[in-house]
Amino acid sequence: MLELIRLYKLKNIQLSNGNLMHGIKKSDDKFIDFGEVYFSWIKKKKVKAWKFHKKMNINFVVPVGEVLFVFYDERTNEIKEIVIGESNYSRLYVPPKIWFGFKNLSNADSLVVNIASIEHDDTEVHNKDIREIQYDWEKSK
Amino acid sequence: MLELIRLYKLKNIQLSNGNLMHGIKKSDDKFIDFGEVYFSWIKKKKVKAWKFHKKMNINFVVPVGEVLFVFYDERTNEIKEIVIGESNYSRLYVPPKIWFGFKNLSNADSLVVNIASIEHDDTEVHNKDIREIQYDWEKSK
Repeated sequence: MLELIRLYKLKNIQLSNGNLMHGIKKSDDKFIDFGEVYFSWIKKKKVKAWKFHKKMNINFVVPVGEVLFVFYDERTNEIKEIVIGESNYSRLYVPPKIWFGFKNLSNADSLVVNIASIEHDDTEVHNKDIREIQYDWEKSK
Repeated sequence: MLELIRLYKLKNIQLSNGNLMHGIKKSDDKFIDFGEVYFSWIKKKKVKAWKFHKKMNINFVVPVGEVLFVFYDERTNEIKEIVIGESNYSRLYVPPKIWFGFKNLSNADSLVVNIASIEHDDTEVHNKDIREIQYDWEKSK
């Protein structure tokens, strides 16, 4: 079901005192509902993996740095890789029931913003250790 | 009416691969509605001022840097100053009908996140030149 993941280009408007970067509007495609916004920093070359949401629809935006997202669908055994960040400034929509992890590709900290359809709820999140899903995180430098 | 402005401390959770910073949840106090999230960078020592929303309720979060927000109520002629950012990590709720501007106090770019109750709409925004409301932006270094 990885074809349900969507990538939307976002505007990064150049302004003399500092840029204005779009995020998400409630009238946007694949805005399901609003539950929570939070910010996940990821240090240079580090990986955060793996997570699975039973219910949460996610919209990821990376206003700082460059991040590789890797998706794994255990129903079909498919893998999908998408890089977003300052140089490909976009919103990444992820439906529930997909395993994901991400790696910072930039030489400084990157910032992942998650605009989530529901509030954080431990009972709808599954976690796996990075080694429990086979993926070569080292191939991306 | 500047007493309607609210400041809420937010969690910044230390994690080995990168911190997790809270933003806003729909069950939080002064979460009015969700319209849009956008990101406003502000360069070192620069000011963005002044703006006034007829309808938008704003929640500001500063996950990068340190920003002075200045509020002006033309009904009462009051001024209010609040600094938020990485070292005072908080959410700042601002109701409609208050003029505001902000200045970057840090030595690098700062990032202002606005979680807004409505989508951007030119007809509900007023702008004034920085000189049209008297405030000494130079007193903060």
